[in-house]
Amino acid sequence: MASNIKFLGQKLAQSIDVDLMSKYGYAIEQLMELAGFSVAESIAREYPVGKVLLCIGPGNNGGDGLVAARHLKHFGYQPVLYYPKQPEKDLYRNLLTQCGHHHIPVVDDLVKEITASSLIVDAIFGFSFKGLVRAPFDQTLAALREASIPIVSVDIPSGWDVESGDAHGVGLSPDMLVSLTAPKICAKEFRGRFHYLGGRFVPPEMAQKLNIPEYPGTSQCVRLN
Amino acid sequence: MASNIKFLGQKLAQSIDVDLMSKYGYAIEQLMELAGFSVAESIAREYPVGKVLLCIGPGNNGGDGLVAARHLKHFGYQPVLYYPKQPEKDLYRNLLTQCGHHHIPVVDDLVKEITASSLIVDAIFGFSFKGLVRAPFDQTLAALREASIPIVSVDIPSGWDVESGDAHGVGLSPDMLVSLTAPKICAKEFRGRFHYLGGRFVPPEMAQKLNIPEYPGTSQCVRLN
Repeated sequence: MASNIKFLGQKLAQSIDVDLMSKYGYAIEQLMELAGFSVAESIAREYPVGKVLLCIGPGNNGGDGLVAARHLKHFGYQPVLYYPKQPEKDLYRNLLTQCGHHHIPVVDDLVKEITASSLIVDAIFGFSFKGLVRAPFDQTLAALREASIPIVSVDIPSGWDVESGDAHGVGLSPDMLVSLTAPKICAKEFRGRFHYLGGRFVPPEMAQKLNIPEYPGTSQCVRLN
Repeated sequence: MASNIKFLGQKLAQSIDVDLMSKYGYAIEQLMELAGFSVAESIAREYPVGKVLLCIGPGNNGGDGLVAARHLKHFGYQPVLYYPKQPEKDLYRNLLTQCGHHHIPVVDDLVKEITASSLIVDAIFGFSFKGLVRAPFDQTLAALREASIPIVSVDIPSGWDVESGDAHGVGLSPDMLVSLTAPKICAKEFRGRFHYLGGRFVPPEMAQKLNIPEYPGTSQCVRLN
């Protein structure tokens, strides 16, 4: 279906992100809303409603996760947030406020919550991640690697290098990967069941360059594998 | 299906809007994105792809229309914008930039474009509108009232009073009305075929007070009639 889609390296992913917010005129709140919505919609396509533990990182990948949590709640799931490092930035604080008003709790005991959930969303690190996983997320990834329930990774399986994949052997092995805008090079090594694409905001010129496949109907996600 | 949904007067609609952006922490870009998307999705449920003329007003109702235009383009429609009064505000300029990069043209000859289109979207006035229709929109409404193709109104049929409906007899008679957040009082006088609700961002506390119906699946719109 999407055999020719372009896989992005870190630099290209970053420059596309800059273009979307400068040349193409998008606000980050718009992009994050559509990205997070596409993650929630992809999940709703493949997993029954139930308790979902969303692990939220300190950057934009975490922001996508906060948006996804809110939409999952609207879809009938019971999301909870594990959010050990909450930055002061208004963008993230507002997304967390929205979650609070949707009765989405922030939880502390990761291991207990894994046991009580039927699905994990890994919204910890995105395409800006480089190098080694630092505290407290080294512990988070260790606990998630032990989980026996499916993991859905947002854009990048956390712990993976954007280009070389699970180079350090500390990364997650997600059951679903939701690539955003376009898949990153590491997605070629994804071995889970479901590879989706989200981010239906790519203008035609960019979509043509990246060989973005057609999204079906009004859906904000499309399956790639 | 939605027999008990609350119909809002102008003051209540305005205070709900303020609450969404203060107490509940939403950015206007998020609300507008989801509102505009729900308009596009409602259209895609009921009308075949074709050329759509979107008439854009100077305020937030127009902003919803600009977002809807972009999503309609992604869904395979051919949207064009009639946008006679373009405010300087960054919010609207950015939405127009996004439309430009999606090859959505801005057109001038309203009567000619009505003839060439299969559907009109009325995103001229919303719930802030009060009093008499001033130039150039008096001419716009006069031309649209003559149109023989269906009109989809965003939140309020333009020319109508939010509460008393088509009090001055200059308003449109839409085939579809997409109410946003909750229907306004004038929607009780809507006589078109399709009444939809969009704006799936209402937190549970507010949804309960307003008797918002369940949205189906992952849809961002729900039919009310």
